[in-house]
Amino acid sequence: MRWAGASSILRAVMLSLIGVDIGGTRTRVGAFFQGRLLARRAFPTRGLEEVIETIHGLLGELGWQAPEAIGVGAPAPMDMRAGVILGCPNLPHWSGVRVTDRLRAEFRCPVFLANDATCAAIGELEFGHRAGDFVYITWSTGIGGGIVSGGRVVWGASGRAGEIGHMVLSPDGPPCRCGKRGCLEAVASGTGIARAAEERLGEGLSAEEVVARARAGDLGARRIAEEACRAFGQGLSIVWELLEPELIVLGGGLTRSWDFLGPMVVEALRKMARGEPRVVLTKLGDDVGLYGAAALPDHFPREWASR
Amino acid sequence: MRWAGASSILRAVMLSLIGVDIGGTRTRVGAFFQGRLLARRAFPTRGLEEVIETIHGLLGELGWQAPEAIGVGAPAPMDMRAGVILGCPNLPHWSGVRVTDRLRAEFRCPVFLANDATCAAIGELEFGHRAGDFVYITWSTGIGGGIVSGGRVVWGASGRAGEIGHMVLSPDGPPCRCGKRGCLEAVASGTGIARAAEERLGEGLSAEEVVARARAGDLGARRIAEEACRAFGQGLSIVWELLEPELIVLGGGLTRSWDFLGPMVVEALRKMARGEPRVVLTKLGDDVGLYGAAALPDHFPREWASR
Repeated sequence: MRWAGASSILRAVMLSLIGVDIGGTRTRVGAFFQGRLLARRAFPTRGLEEVIETIHGLLGELGWQAPEAIGVGAPAPMDMRAGVILGCPNLPHWSGVRVTDRLRAEFRCPVFLANDATCAAIGELEFGHRAGDFVYITWSTGIGGGIVSGGRVVWGASGRAGEIGHMVLSPDGPPCRCGKRGCLEAVASGTGIARAAEERLGEGLSAEEVVARARAGDLGARRIAEEACRAFGQGLSIVWELLEPELIVLGGGLTRSWDFLGPMVVEALRKMARGEPRVVLTKLGDDVGLYGAAALPDHFPREWASR
Repeated sequence: MRWAGASSILRAVMLSLIGVDIGGTRTRVGAFFQGRLLARRAFPTRGLEEVIETIHGLLGELGWQAPEAIGVGAPAPMDMRAGVILGCPNLPHWSGVRVTDRLRAEFRCPVFLANDATCAAIGELEFGHRAGDFVYITWSTGIGGGIVSGGRVVWGASGRAGEIGHMVLSPDGPPCRCGKRGCLEAVASGTGIARAAEERLGEGLSAEEVVARARAGDLGARRIAEEACRAFGQGLSIVWELLEPELIVLGGGLTRSWDFLGPMVVEALRKMARGEPRVVLTKLGDDVGLYGAAALPDHFPREWASR
């Protein structure tokens, strides 16, 4: 089933929107008019003041007084109702920042804050593959996800649904930065791949470097890549059995090596899933979260929106 | 968030409903009026003719001409759109049976067919704990589940969402009747417990007997029960991280020993989940699927309902 419901609302009702995608390393800000991206800026992530400055710059450039709403995605634990980012190792300058209060005071419009992977799922829903039932998964430094069912975001009790990276696959596996052991993220993420390389190859390599060596035929690197892909495929198979999505949509840095890693992931997935799961890459590239942040105001749960 | 939306529709619009819960061993048929169970029958599962006879009996007893709709739940692969049960080892007499066509021809009302665990989730939504975001899980001979998000059933692309028992936890684990290896069901279900007992204790014991021996202090049986509980807790932790339900609601035969098994399950769950997952038992006992079958007509996806 293709999804066209909310996107038409978005295009008709929400005219001028600002999307903000705060990343671990880069922040993206975009101005959208009737569902089209008119202008965007990207810069190294610092604090909220840089975001405010950038929005002012975009508004000035476009001759807008104020946006009708602002949506913000961030890779951090948060209180979605209060619009506050909680303690977060990825974003040390953002701990305790009252994002929505501050932006609302500055721009006098409704502001919404959500997890970046959930925003990316909204981006896929509104601007990407537009399936009604799918799961979006970021495969990058970390592993995160967002779930859409019947054209609606599955938020969970407090907006934390989609923590695909923190499903425990091997209870005695390597420690995860979340404090548990054997999470999918600890094994299959960029961080997990780099840690395995350090432990087993005795070298400080990035995940990209491990993948490059594996591609060039290095056996130790190849084994690490294979194990990560097998665990990632297992994670996808669990998502498939639990949710039977029409599509599993992938984004994030590691998908840039999909030509090499993809066949290994899909082999593991097929072995551990019944039926015919479909895996595709996002069409929106690194902007998927930015698109989704702009569409967040349309999807934010009404009963959580105090502003 | 408590859920009251669909239940009010159910009570107001759907006056006289028949629910049918086809179990692996017993079939339950109930007549509901304005959301209340007026009469029920239970009998050993045979074929569809016994179900038709029983419905005629209930209608006669209540003086009804015909029900306004019939909902049927079954523990089998099925084509939900066509209302047909597909090949199924649990229900050999039902393979290929066109359940909805046959019942519709007989009772001249809309008929809907869905997975029994999904029906049980609907039963919980309408008649049980009534949370808006929860997962219902049957822990019994097999392990199945149904997911509710924002008061709506998560169906998946073809109605197969919720296959919690077939998430692969250990790719090299014991074979599962589904053809894969290391599924949660292969380790933690009643079938899995009985198979482990046969392999390791060298005796043909039912899961109930293994649990009784473990309770009485038998170390081998205790170890089997512990492993099953640890795997089941791991499965629940994955459900929690993926969906962040307000509640995980459990039903099924093994929950009758929850006083003994529950603490082991919850210990594993707490270790492998962040936050505070809440696990409760269904209040509807063995009738949860029957209640849900009666409420199925209200929840069946409109675009799949040709009848």
